[in-house]
Amino acid sequence: MRILVVNVNTTESITRSIGEQAATVASPGTEIVPLTPSFGAASVEGNYESYLAAIAVMEAVRGYPEPFDAIIQAGYGEHGREGLQELFDVPVVDITEAAASTAQFLGRTYSVVTSLDRTVPLIEDRLRLAGLSARCASVRASGLAVLDLERDPAAAVDAIAEQAARAVRDDRAEVICLGCGGMSGLAERVVHRTGVPVVDGVTAAVTIAESLVRLGLTTSKVRTYAPPRPKVMTNWPPAGVRTGQRVPA
Amino acid sequence: MRILVVNVNTTESITRSIGEQAATVASPGTEIVPLTPSFGAASVEGNYESYLAAIAVMEAVRGYPEPFDAIIQAGYGEHGREGLQELFDVPVVDITEAAASTAQFLGRTYSVVTSLDRTVPLIEDRLRLAGLSARCASVRASGLAVLDLERDPAAAVDAIAEQAARAVRDDRAEVICLGCGGMSGLAERVVHRTGVPVVDGVTAAVTIAESLVRLGLTTSKVRTYAPPRPKVMTNWPPAGVRTGQRVPA
Amino acid sequence: MRILVVNVNTTESITRSIGEQAATVASPGTEIVPLTPSFGAASVEGNYESYLAAIAVMEAVRGYPEPFDAIIQAGYGEHGREGLQELFDVPVVDITEAAASTAQFLGRTYSVVTSLDRTVPLIEDRLRLAGLSARCASVRASGLAVLDLERDPAAAVDAIAEQAARAVRDDRAEVICLGCGGMSGLAERVVHRTGVPVVDGVTAAVTIAESLVRLGLTTSKVRTYAPPRPKVMTNWPPAGVRTGQRVPA
Amino acid sequence: MRILVVNVNTTESITRSIGEQAATVASPGTEIVPLTPSFGAASVEGNYESYLAAIAVMEAVRGYPEPFDAIIQAGYGEHGREGLQELFDVPVVDITEAAASTAQFLGRTYSVVTSLDRTVPLIEDRLRLAGLSARCASVRASGLAVLDLERDPAAAVDAIAEQAARAVRDDRAEVICLGCGGMSGLAERVVHRTGVPVVDGVTAAVTIAESLVRLGLTTSKVRTYAPPRPKVMTNWPPAGVRTGQRVPA
Amino acid sequence: MRILVVNVNTTESITRSIGEQAATVASPGTEIVPLTPSFGAASVEGNYESYLAAIAVMEAVRGYPEPFDAIIQAGYGEHGREGLQELFDVPVVDITEAAASTAQFLGRTYSVVTSLDRTVPLIEDRLRLAGLSARCASVRASGLAVLDLERDPAAAVDAIAEQAARAVRDDRAEVICLGCGGMSGLAERVVHRTGVPVVDGVTAAVTIAESLVRLGLTTSKVRTYAPPRPKVMTNWPPAGVRTGQRVPA
Amino acid sequence: MRILVVNVNTTESITRSIGEQAATVASPGTEIVPLTPSFGAASVEGNYESYLAAIAVMEAVRGYPEPFDAIIQAGYGEHGREGLQELFDVPVVDITEAAASTAQFLGRTYSVVTSLDRTVPLIEDRLRLAGLSARCASVRASGLAVLDLERDPAAAVDAIAEQAARAVRDDRAEVICLGCGGMSGLAERVVHRTGVPVVDGVTAAVTIAESLVRLGLTTSKVRTYAPPRPKVMTNWPPAGVRTGQRVPA
Repeated sequence: MRILVVNVNTTESITRSIGEQAATVASPGTEIVPLTPSFGAASVEGNYESYLAAIAVMEAVRGYPEPFDAIIQAGYGEHGREGLQELFDVPVVDITEAAASTAQFLGRTYSVVTSLDRTVPLIEDRLRLAGLSARCASVRASGLAVLDLERDPAAAVDAIAEQAARAVRDDRAEVICLGCGGMSGLAERVVHRTGVPVVDGVTAAVTIAESLVRLGLTTSKVRTYAPPRPKVMTNWPPAGVRTGQRVPA
Repeated sequence: MRILVVNVNTTESITRSIGEQAATVASPGTEIVPLTPSFGAASVEGNYESYLAAIAVMEAVRGYPEPFDAIIQAGYGEHGREGLQELFDVPVVDITEAAASTAQFLGRTYSVVTSLDRTVPLIEDRLRLAGLSARCASVRASGLAVLDLERDPAAAVDAIAEQAARAVRDDRAEVICLGCGGMSGLAERVVHRTGVPVVDGVTAAVTIAESLVRLGLTTSKVRTYAPPRPKVMTNWPPAGVRTGQRVPA
Repeated sequence: MRILVVNVNTTESITRSIGEQAATVASPGTEIVPLTPSFGAASVEGNYESYLAAIAVMEAVRGYPEPFDAIIQAGYGEHGREGLQELFDVPVVDITEAAASTAQFLGRTYSVVTSLDRTVPLIEDRLRLAGLSARCASVRASGLAVLDLERDPAAAVDAIAEQAARAVRDDRAEVICLGCGGMSGLAERVVHRTGVPVVDGVTAAVTIAESLVRLGLTTSKVRTYAPPRPKVMTNWPPAGVRTGQRVPA
Repeated sequence: MRILVVNVNTTESITRSIGEQAATVASPGTEIVPLTPSFGAASVEGNYESYLAAIAVMEAVRGYPEPFDAIIQAGYGEHGREGLQELFDVPVVDITEAAASTAQFLGRTYSVVTSLDRTVPLIEDRLRLAGLSARCASVRASGLAVLDLERDPAAAVDAIAEQAARAVRDDRAEVICLGCGGMSGLAERVVHRTGVPVVDGVTAAVTIAESLVRLGLTTSKVRTYAPPRPKVMTNWPPAGVRTGQRVPA
Repeated sequence: MRILVVNVNTTESITRSIGEQAATVASPGTEIVPLTPSFGAASVEGNYESYLAAIAVMEAVRGYPEPFDAIIQAGYGEHGREGLQELFDVPVVDITEAAASTAQFLGRTYSVVTSLDRTVPLIEDRLRLAGLSARCASVRASGLAVLDLERDPAAAVDAIAEQAARAVRDDRAEVICLGCGGMSGLAERVVHRTGVPVVDGVTAAVTIAESLVRLGLTTSKVRTYAPPRPKVMTNWPPAGVRTGQRVPA
Repeated sequence: MRILVVNVNTTESITRSIGEQAATVASPGTEIVPLTPSFGAASVEGNYESYLAAIAVMEAVRGYPEPFDAIIQAGYGEHGREGLQELFDVPVVDITEAAASTAQFLGRTYSVVTSLDRTVPLIEDRLRLAGLSARCASVRASGLAVLDLERDPAAAVDAIAEQAARAVRDDRAEVICLGCGGMSGLAERVVHRTGVPVVDGVTAAVTIAESLVRLGLTTSKVRTYAPPRPKVMTNWPPAGVRTGQRVPA
């Protein structure tokens, strides 16, 4: 099976790192295809950039020329998952929801440790809409920007472990979710520092996407995620955007 | 004062109708500037189109060359309001929230009557995130597409009044919100048919935007709506998109 | 248009100050009529006094001899708004709800800073019933009694700014509502001290009341706020209470 | 022990009937003292009348010249309980809450059957503030006014049993609460018609009030129900209102 | 009337102490029958032990040879109450719910102070399912194991009073519930130390059980608590378990 | 890897059918070990039987003599999962939660179709505690007992499809979960009849258990699911119960 893993940032090194992380848990026979959107911000840290990424991710997938079996949106707390579910039949897995769903099997409550304080509200909103906030003890910020996480993994581990420890002690979290695609690969080191299970959204999403495909399940098309109706589109997609598919009718 | 009223659809006749409706309640001295996005769907009826409209609306406002005092996003249940709040300091009023906030001063509960069944979940999600769902009795679909509403206002009034009456009787609604920018102008006729107050989001939003400006209030920049951080942007905005401003640093 | 602004306290200087504050944002052509109830407590700071004020405010409005277009109940967290909505057709705006509704357009969350600790539960209850608590980060007490606020505005600003700063930092509030009619007029100075938008309920209520009137909207009479049924009344209103109108049949 | 059972209506025959019903379950040694407020509506069926009753009930209790051990507010869904808790140390039991608390020990969910449709929102609000709505399946109206219930008990039983049966079948209620002080005494006949436990608020309240007294428990005075602060009161209580006690300082 | 008070622990001295505590508030004519389960843990402090206790309590009651009028499950936050309600018609009162229901009549919010930190989640879950969590300010652990509470009541009072004081100050609790059957008898000393009402679940449950019996109310059998259907049972009850009754058909 | 799949009923044919269903999706290298509890009811349809099954399942797993990597509790809406999580370190997956978690990736809302009406409350409670009820549109009963499902699969498909269709149309469900271990194997036929994705809890649980093992994740032991403390156990496990392990200290 082939799983598209789409970065929300336009920074290729993050795409590469996400792809490598995804590959570590992929089953034999699963092909992980990491994609970088063709437009948008180098790092997504707020609503404007996230809305832009939502569209860029959709166009990246629409432009992918080969068949595929599932889509992973590899951004934490980002907009756009519902659009992908309208455009495609195959399962769509958002790493925010993948991590939370997985964490809920391991402890009574979980906390998310993310990058900047300003991304906390985005994550909280996504979890609420996804019906996954009842057991969320807190969403905490490490204070590190997305690109800082990449540049200095050791400092990232320190900052994340510090907030994770507070989440366990003060917020009564029992599991920690790494709340940023760019944190992929740090889980093991955070476990060492906190003593509780640490869930990485990217690897969790790979196992969930594979599971849905193995179960033969696809997105329900009965109402919310029905394909877009045929429409007159103005100036979209713009020239230069890498895409070949039409909006399904 | 100048208020930008941005349509989410690329259909200019809807923009014109929204603008005319807005002007009916504007105070002397208030200039209503209706804007059509330069790209996107002729009518927005689902998540893919709504996410695209979110970005198109932001670019339309960024491309507007004159100063302005407030922004109205004239789409019901659409994505994007938070992005506008990040990009600009002036108050941003979404008509979904304007209608609900207004309705809550008039009755204990309100229902929304919208266009197609598939837009119901979008409206419900927006109201939930806006903290305005506790008094929402129901969101009901008239079954008419956005462009149908425009083509046949008499049929639209019938279909809306039918659902409004059911909302009052079965869902115990006490106020009705017209849940589609394209319904602007039909309120009075629906009142005649239902006997309860009917709130039009566009006119409600104009009075709220004016109120916020008169009170000297602007968007809080302390966390969620802080301006985007300076970023390397790839391929955005695309050539041909009507915009001149940079993302604020 | 004429708007009655009814104090809940029997202290006339508070009525005067509320009226002056209301006038600062009233549109040309709007007449602000400040009213003091003819019975009750000099300052309302608890349930017994608030229930008494509820009735006193209703009687004050019933006794007002001229026509009017809207009613503002200028007490924060007080009982009685639903009774006014039953008795009259014109819009009724409670300043607790006006402030919260307005704050929600400006930031993702808001906190209220009120007078005494014992009034916190009343405000929380009112916000919950009004469906406005989902985005309320906290209700905090300055520790100052209502009459102290009036006597020493500088100390009031200090105490309010202190709690406002904690609300922003510890409770993640993005907007502050001044939670006491007697705080009217202090908003600007609190803004200076906190850097976030500060909403005064009285001025917010004036713009909302004007908006509802301009939109031609009145209270829904379909169920909750239907006029009282004709009733045999015993010993009410008492001799000496300033009122001339009968309970509508 | 002496328990004051205060009617919210000024109709003495209702007071008498409530008192008789209360007496049927009082323990040996418990004296039931039924009180009628000295002012207000013959029957309370809405917010204006309920706010007036809130004050009238408080004054009735303040005017009672002998010591007492507990207070029962015998109105369903009425305002005022918090005021009584401020004014007095002895336990205060509202029959709305007494019925719901009792019902929760008997079945997973309960429904309330009340008099008129317009009183449904009042009951819902009271249950929500009391933290007793999570297991409330529905509040249904029999369509009978308070005084009709008294005049024609047979018709009342029919109308109540009809709604009770629907609550069990359609709303999945497992217990029925009789939602009106005036329904006191009909429980047994409704049980016969529905096959589920039927809770009468007045008798439930008597057993709860006795229980609290036997347990030596009194109202917490630490915050919400602290005694009113000493205040200058204007024109209250009015001449002719039967009361002798001062607001405690 | 005869009330069975069933300990969840197999430690007989706790049963004795619970029984003595229950007897202090029982009415003349009420016989308190304390029961110890015939199998399970000496002290119940977690889910495995609690599930085992659930079954052991049911078997203990099924094995009781005489008629009885009500059952009190005297464990705080334990599983099993619903099973008892299926097996028997008489009222079943869980002390967790008895304490919370009682506390809600005395203050706006309550906190529970329990034994070990690990029992906090069990209590929270029980309160949530019982619809009694809306007014629960917090559940706090004293850090003392169940058997420690018994061994050193003075230390227990200290540890409980410390957490109770924090609950009042930091969590805004207005009433304290003693969250462990083994704390029965300490209430008075904790009141002395905190100044707020303190509710003991065992004595509260006795008054509630008596009340339900006096009101002639029994468990609703319409759905959730219908008697178990006739079933083929394998190896249950085991030889040596003290029980004589069959599962009702 | 070895996964224990534990039936809650003592009927071996159900165990066999669950095991076969589980095996259809197990990865190469995964060994499915179906277990039948050694005591309890032939079919579990209510709280008493479910509490008994909770203990029987725990003892069945404790008595299993070989190492294993994960546990699936194959009962829908049953008690006991938290106990397993205390007793063992390996991941524990309840099929109720597995189905709901999986469904949430496929549609905005899901409904559960179960066996008897009396099991609806158990499922609702489990989903609420698991934080998975926000997107649950409804839990509906087919009216068929567990053993009937086994005896007449064609009738079962009819009854389930009928309720599934109503859930989609009336409750706005977008995905259906088969709410009974005994329905395993019917999913495909229900899909044919409803046109929406149908999730079988047993197969969903297998993929989730495998995923957790592949991710190297185990149950958090920091608080709620810490191992039971060393305890004096009375008369447990009973002679004849097939078990060899001690409660871990």
